[in-house]
Amino acid sequence: MIKIGIVGGTGYTGVELLRLLAAHPDAELRAITSRKDAGTPVAEMFPSLRGRYDLAFTDPAGADLGSCDVVFFATPHGVAMAQARELVDAGVRVIDLAADFRLQDPAVFTQWYGLPHSCPDLLAEAVYGLPELNREAIRTARIVGNPGCYPTTMQLGYAPLLEAGVIDPGRLIADCKSGVSGAGRKAEVNLLFAEASDSFKAYGVKGHRHHPETVAQLARLTAQPIGLVFTPHLVPMIRGMHSTLYAELTRTDVDLQALYERRYANEPFVDVMPAGSAPDTRSVRASNMLRIAVHRPAGTDLAMVLAVEDNLVKGAAGQAIQNMNLMFGLPEATGLEALAVLP
Amino acid sequence: MIKIGIVGGTGYTGVELLRLLAAHPDAELRAITSRKDAGTPVAEMFPSLRGRYDLAFTDPAGADLGSCDVVFFATPHGVAMAQARELVDAGVRVIDLAADFRLQDPAVFTQWYGLPHSCPDLLAEAVYGLPELNREAIRTARIVGNPGCYPTTMQLGYAPLLEAGVIDPGRLIADCKSGVSGAGRKAEVNLLFAEASDSFKAYGVKGHRHHPETVAQLARLTAQPIGLVFTPHLVPMIRGMHSTLYAELTRTDVDLQALYERRYANEPFVDVMPAGSAPDTRSVRASNMLRIAVHRPAGTDLAMVLAVEDNLVKGAAGQAIQNMNLMFGLPEATGLEALAVLP
Amino acid sequence: MIKIGIVGGTGYTGVELLRLLAAHPDAELRAITSRKDAGTPVAEMFPSLRGRYDLAFTDPAGADLGSCDVVFFATPHGVAMAQARELVDAGVRVIDLAADFRLQDPAVFTQWYGLPHSCPDLLAEAVYGLPELNREAIRTARIVGNPGCYPTTMQLGYAPLLEAGVIDPGRLIADCKSGVSGAGRKAEVNLLFAEASDSFKAYGVKGHRHHPETVAQLARLTAQPIGLVFTPHLVPMIRGMHSTLYAELTRTDVDLQALYERRYANEPFVDVMPAGSAPDTRSVRASNMLRIAVHRPAGTDLAMVLAVEDNLVKGAAGQAIQNMNLMFGLPEATGLEALAVLP
Amino acid sequence: MIKIGIVGGTGYTGVELLRLLAAHPDAELRAITSRKDAGTPVAEMFPSLRGRYDLAFTDPAGADLGSCDVVFFATPHGVAMAQARELVDAGVRVIDLAADFRLQDPAVFTQWYGLPHSCPDLLAEAVYGLPELNREAIRTARIVGNPGCYPTTMQLGYAPLLEAGVIDPGRLIADCKSGVSGAGRKAEVNLLFAEASDSFKAYGVKGHRHHPETVAQLARLTAQPIGLVFTPHLVPMIRGMHSTLYAELTRTDVDLQALYERRYANEPFVDVMPAGSAPDTRSVRASNMLRIAVHRPAGTDLAMVLAVEDNLVKGAAGQAIQNMNLMFGLPEATGLEALAVLP
Repeated sequence: MIKIGIVGGTGYTGVELLRLLAAHPDAELRAITSRKDAGTPVAEMFPSLRGRYDLAFTDPAGADLGSCDVVFFATPHGVAMAQARELVDAGVRVIDLAADFRLQDPAVFTQWYGLPHSCPDLLAEAVYGLPELNREAIRTARIVGNPGCYPTTMQLGYAPLLEAGVIDPGRLIADCKSGVSGAGRKAEVNLLFAEASDSFKAYGVKGHRHHPETVAQLARLTAQPIGLVFTPHLVPMIRGMHSTLYAELTRTDVDLQALYERRYANEPFVDVMPAGSAPDTRSVRASNMLRIAVHRPAGTDLAMVLAVEDNLVKGAAGQAIQNMNLMFGLPEATGLEALAVLP
Repeated sequence: MIKIGIVGGTGYTGVELLRLLAAHPDAELRAITSRKDAGTPVAEMFPSLRGRYDLAFTDPAGADLGSCDVVFFATPHGVAMAQARELVDAGVRVIDLAADFRLQDPAVFTQWYGLPHSCPDLLAEAVYGLPELNREAIRTARIVGNPGCYPTTMQLGYAPLLEAGVIDPGRLIADCKSGVSGAGRKAEVNLLFAEASDSFKAYGVKGHRHHPETVAQLARLTAQPIGLVFTPHLVPMIRGMHSTLYAELTRTDVDLQALYERRYANEPFVDVMPAGSAPDTRSVRASNMLRIAVHRPAGTDLAMVLAVEDNLVKGAAGQAIQNMNLMFGLPEATGLEALAVLP
Repeated sequence: MIKIGIVGGTGYTGVELLRLLAAHPDAELRAITSRKDAGTPVAEMFPSLRGRYDLAFTDPAGADLGSCDVVFFATPHGVAMAQARELVDAGVRVIDLAADFRLQDPAVFTQWYGLPHSCPDLLAEAVYGLPELNREAIRTARIVGNPGCYPTTMQLGYAPLLEAGVIDPGRLIADCKSGVSGAGRKAEVNLLFAEASDSFKAYGVKGHRHHPETVAQLARLTAQPIGLVFTPHLVPMIRGMHSTLYAELTRTDVDLQALYERRYANEPFVDVMPAGSAPDTRSVRASNMLRIAVHRPAGTDLAMVLAVEDNLVKGAAGQAIQNMNLMFGLPEATGLEALAVLP
Repeated sequence: MIKIGIVGGTGYTGVELLRLLAAHPDAELRAITSRKDAGTPVAEMFPSLRGRYDLAFTDPAGADLGSCDVVFFATPHGVAMAQARELVDAGVRVIDLAADFRLQDPAVFTQWYGLPHSCPDLLAEAVYGLPELNREAIRTARIVGNPGCYPTTMQLGYAPLLEAGVIDPGRLIADCKSGVSGAGRKAEVNLLFAEASDSFKAYGVKGHRHHPETVAQLARLTAQPIGLVFTPHLVPMIRGMHSTLYAELTRTDVDLQALYERRYANEPFVDVMPAGSAPDTRSVRASNMLRIAVHRPAGTDLAMVLAVEDNLVKGAAGQAIQNMNLMFGLPEATGLEALAVLP
């Protein structure tokens, strides 16, 4: 059994980790911390967990995380980098679901997150946790930066085209749409039901933190400079992310459908849909699958990729467990095989 | 033109007053206050108002409310009673959309709202602003306590039965359902889209402030004591309220349909549906209409009443304007005739 | 492995059976039929099943259901009773998720469903499949009538009170609310998103088929006659059912909380919430759990029970699998232990 | 008073015409037809209209449309072109909310709508009813083809850029999102609440009928050939449309904000938002306003335009009334001044 700790379990990625780990045959939750809610049973905050989880949130100070095999950080950014050194020195492996170990360049981190990076040496060794592009490095990583939800869809969407060298990497347009849970469990007026329901809007139009993360990772797939327009939108649904990705083809003799099917043939969590498809987000609701379809709009020299995921699963907690499975030598899909909830 | 002031215009009843007053031919908004957002143009906070409202929120201290003909309080409870004396003395009439002037008994107010009533003399003269039950008193009132949303449906739903003396007033069960906007524009986790959407629950099961208000008003319609079970529920919709009201018939020879049609024959904002109907809340969305259907479930000696309203209109801002029209001698429906938005 | 057939798999209970059976370690799907969609791969109609189910819908005529151990009917009423005789004679056990084997009295069936019952002898031996009230009979049943979604909540909600003899069975009021999937996957205008979203209504006010089913089953728990008012409402959510149940206490010295906790202490799928709770439907979304809370509203001699379930799981497909587990001697919770999806 | 007839009033554009016309001081509804629902009072089908509309749907055969001043067709395509000749000959003006008079080229019409155009001569004289681009021609038109909802946003979004000649018209990408009411009041499984709620998808990826309409109209604004990728998506909301429009700037010294403000300075129903804005669809819900924001994403030579409308108002019925006002010499905003419903 893998002994597991979770730091900051009161948000949506925290409760999703708990839901998924309950179905994992090799996971044993040892501790879950929350400064604010120490003492509260997790099943009192989230009644969906009643009958399965007996433990309560503990204060971070008193939690014995050092005896865990792996600790997940389901916290705001800034927390994991403050605690990672001690854990790693104690032989505990770290998977951060926030942004502390996503951006390899500390200066870029500071620019977008507004604080200095407190452990640049660990950042240097941290591994970006996107299994489909980085599987081998993840297996042996001590620290994994779990990708953002948008970046997961953009990378898996553009990767086959960039790897094959058939598009202009300098003119990418990613028009992305997310359910509201992507904003977290924060008491903010603009996230209220009465504000976000029955409406649709773009946001972050002046710049979004997932932009530099995506550009940095896409740059690893091509020698040419990346130019990316990324427009996030808010959809009145709880879970789900849909990215509509446009790219200019530099070679038009390529069979896009075959390219994608080949690229992802052996991936357990990327499903290339039949030609002509348009996946809906509910087809991956509550599952770790990312479904993808590739199109060439009639009369154009563009590729258009449609990619859907559950932002809390493949876009967060599920991917984190997929990384854990890799790190501990388990079959990659262990505990992650539940089908999507439809309808 | 009626010169109007609004205190506390940043919540949902505030913006709804602005929306409705924009269509009112005799209303002129002079001032709208907000302590926290003083200086912000109202149309910046609510872009739906762009092009119609130029004014900004002003600090309550500097607002010249004394020159208004009427001031609406769209504030949390406790604010109106602190300012009413000064306004009334200046000849300004007051319509409070919160609870300060709903409960005639100061002790009951204190019990449910947790603070003493600061102007019991004004409370004594305040008029409960439900036009269908209290029209004449409203016309000359200096202070109107605008009814709560739930109490409006319960009173208009039970009134014909109580007035006719055909039910047992001691055994009423009101199973009520409200859209999320009823909880106000407050940054609370339980009101987030990701919490309230695609779910349904009862709340306030240990007691809700609209219970004593309703009991006190229903008691005016009968000499017998009122016994009322009131169970509010939260519906994943923005606007709308649906009350399912049960009562035990003490006379079973009564034509309930005729009773309701007769009672509300001349009411502009109560629509008795045909026998056998079940009104949906969208049939009154954004309108000041309350629709009502009365049933006698097969094989029982019960009356069942279904009443729907838009909680922000007939349940709040629309009813307040209806009261204003009465107070200023205007036709009661002035500015309130827009049809419901369907779909 | 239990060899399984599904008749009529294109509706919501059908796809939910497929989702749940995919997680069942002892189930092997042999055939799934659809007259209209014969030849279509199930994963083409429901992309959420891609990668797990290879088979296609087959025409009922050609399906070898006789070699199955059990056949589920996820069809409209009238289909199971036409095919049950042949299956039972071939030694196949039958679980009908429709209404053919719910009402023991053929005359009542005809009254409510508008057609004669075609196999009254099988009806006579059929077992009503509510494990918490009927467990032993289910184990050996050849034919199980799987309960309706509303009746499941009403029976499990009222059972402890009726069994303890502490309420008046003649004056029950059940105010029930269902998500839209309860109406099935039917192309009807009133179920469209643009009709049912952001609205709330009662329906079936002249009588609903789950009324006689519930009355007949509740009658088994008491010697006194049952009087039940049942008002279903439509909630703008996909899944979920919330029943608010009222009853008049005939004994007021009873500890309701203890009564419920004791009654359901050993039930794997009934969770009695702590005193004072109000369960939300999302706390059981996509799970087989029914959560229940019992209250005595202040100042009354009423019991009020709040019961929530996922109408497609405990209210349909999950309960059917629970029944199958009992019929085949498996641990009752096999394959049904996934936690609710929250948020 | 303008005497008005409506053909086919049982869909969403029909009931929206009725809602809006009820607030129009110069409109008098004379007849509304429906073959299928002849005899049914309109207020029975749409209870939101109770108390305002007494008339019933009449059979098209018996309706005296020839005595109207103007007839709106709120029908599927193919109906208006069959009846327009007779009406026009009788001196009745025609506004078609379907597609019969949108595509000036009959061959293109046939290609996309699958039937020959039955009155190409009337098509030749028909005027495309987008007031902001075609106001003068509309005033005197006998037949107006009311624009599609998507094309309205795309044209008003791209027009300032095309008119100013600052983008490459051959490389336009329009990523558009619509609420479900845009698909009409049709009983189709994919439009059910349980299918469309809490999900998001692209659709029409192989080609959508609004593509040729938009291309043909945009071509009137530039001498260069139009190249347009148009990707519609379905949003789980009732009303609202959000178009995210991308274009490559050929001149980068242009002040985009000033360009848009200047272009739409005198338009009553186009609101250019402040620089940096992202309008949400609810800010135009139930109103005839289109709000628009223009951006230049950092580090790019792209223009990005965000345009929102209510697809049933500015995208359909409201725009039709705006056209009627122009055709009859009324102030253009008559009856269309209601503010958006927010929240």
